[in-house]
Amino acid sequence: MKDNSMQVPAYEDMLAAHERIKPHIRRTPVRTSDYLNELTGAELFFKCENFQEPGAFKVRGATNAVFGLDDEQAQKGVATHSSGNHASCLSYAAMLRGIPCNVVMPRTAPQAKKDTVRRYGGKITECEPSTTSREETFATVQAQTGGDFVHPYNDPRVIAGQGTCSKEFMEQTDGLDIVVAPIGGGGMISGTCLTLSTLAPETQIIAAEPEQADDAYRSFKAGHIIADDAPVTIADGLKVPLKELTWHFVSNHVSDILTASEQEIVDAMKITWKHLRIVMEPSSAVPLATILKNRDRFAGKRVGIIVTGGNVDLDTLPWIN
Amino acid sequence: MKDNSMQVPAYEDMLAAHERIKPHIRRTPVRTSDYLNELTGAELFFKCENFQEPGAFKVRGATNAVFGLDDEQAQKGVATHSSGNHASCLSYAAMLRGIPCNVVMPRTAPQAKKDTVRRYGGKITECEPSTTSREETFATVQAQTGGDFVHPYNDPRVIAGQGTCSKEFMEQTDGLDIVVAPIGGGGMISGTCLTLSTLAPETQIIAAEPEQADDAYRSFKAGHIIADDAPVTIADGLKVPLKELTWHFVSNHVSDILTASEQEIVDAMKITWKHLRIVMEPSSAVPLATILKNRDRFAGKRVGIIVTGGNVDLDTLPWIN
Repeated sequence: MKDNSMQVPAYEDMLAAHERIKPHIRRTPVRTSDYLNELTGAELFFKCENFQEPGAFKVRGATNAVFGLDDEQAQKGVATHSSGNHASCLSYAAMLRGIPCNVVMPRTAPQAKKDTVRRYGGKITECEPSTTSREETFATVQAQTGGDFVHPYNDPRVIAGQGTCSKEFMEQTDGLDIVVAPIGGGGMISGTCLTLSTLAPETQIIAAEPEQADDAYRSFKAGHIIADDAPVTIADGLKVPLKELTWHFVSNHVSDILTASEQEIVDAMKITWKHLRIVMEPSSAVPLATILKNRDRFAGKRVGIIVTGGNVDLDTLPWIN
Repeated sequence: MKDNSMQVPAYEDMLAAHERIKPHIRRTPVRTSDYLNELTGAELFFKCENFQEPGAFKVRGATNAVFGLDDEQAQKGVATHSSGNHASCLSYAAMLRGIPCNVVMPRTAPQAKKDTVRRYGGKITECEPSTTSREETFATVQAQTGGDFVHPYNDPRVIAGQGTCSKEFMEQTDGLDIVVAPIGGGGMISGTCLTLSTLAPETQIIAAEPEQADDAYRSFKAGHIIADDAPVTIADGLKVPLKELTWHFVSNHVSDILTASEQEIVDAMKITWKHLRIVMEPSSAVPLATILKNRDRFAGKRVGIIVTGGNVDLDTLPWIN
């Protein structure tokens, strides 16, 4: 297995990624709301990555990795460990190319997540819900299949793929003063930094994080990676820590990291469902939550928000008991 | 008050309406889903009128009526009776032009509907929840204000406005074999007939209706208008009867009317929220419900669905107890 971890992707890699994945992903629409503009005093633009077929921006990075494989490697397929959107998006991309995808997932992962991976043809190997079990199981699966490891975010092909979102966003809006995106492992934020630091260096990049999983915020303030042990937040896509490649982008290009409480995240989620009329995950509501509580900082600005995903359990919405 | 009821609008009125309202409404996006295509065997296109700022297609007809007034009439404003999307959309359009809007609404109407009308500057006069009280109250309001009566659907300006949706839909999809839209009073269906009978006469127009409010279905079979007394359905936008102008279009241009049960409507609504990741009303789910239960009729066809609105109470979703 080759080590992709510190091959920092370049702007040209993002451009190549966009050409590679364009036939397979959606150029998602940008939505606006007079109501939300009045509420925040800013001019808000929402890039709806929840409208990707598998419901998340992660299909960009996954598709770039899958379609970038040479034919020999492609025969052996791809492999990853994830219990979230990366697992389903990688399975989806592998299905589009017609190659195998092996996913190591804790046996405790929600049945709906397992069903989605299987619907896209992904093969699940279950492990115990611990880092040791996951690493051992993944090593076995990879040895057996030879699948190319596609990390959920600490992979230059994945970051280059996520960066294509901001390229479209700038084309669709004719420029933005600030782009706000949620931060978990940092894949989307890193892709945003990769693209905008060349394409629109004057545009500020702000990362939004749950207070209850604020490891990126504390890392940013401390100047080195701090990983949380087991953060608890409704924004379940944002629990993972930064890694060296995403830290590179965060530490060099992010203007600030803002945080929001659980209640503020749920409130922002409900407001967006009601007024933009889109279904989005709690993680995707963190940017608007931080904008609402830092009104002065955003008022009068053209602000882009990346709506990262729309895979939620419609039977248990956080504002309904 | 002039009688607009049997002035059948012409194709040119729809074209003029589109030019008139374009600066004020959204050209809503068309969404697709590989998953829903597989499920139905058809190629489905969803025109997202729920993404209009006030959340419903009715802003098209309302805006056409409001911006078509001469300056003298505009000073006196507009008036209507409605407890649904027409009231908020007419208030919204009047706000855009800066003219008064008077709405007669039963005192029993949901507080949220009243709040929306007031947010857009509409003035509400409450009546008792009976036809007699509504008509008496409306006559008084109109005599006092001189506001131009804009009927929710039995008005040629409103129908011409609604017809602009299908014009955009055809431009955005390069043509469709069938268009399916919900039918209540018949405003959207009539606008669709007005536009497609000239622009795409080979395209079938199918109306979708709740079984429990199937007065349009029974009218269609009987050959004359049958009005229900007080239908009970979750699709609350579809309880009103056809009137002479909408009956004209329905009887001359609609290919068929299909119905769905309450459970089928709720199932289709949930599937759409989950896989298209949009928030839409129960009324807007009736087309997909009828397609799912009449699979053979739609399989292999390019089918357009008009998602009529997205104003729902997020606290009481029909699939959550």
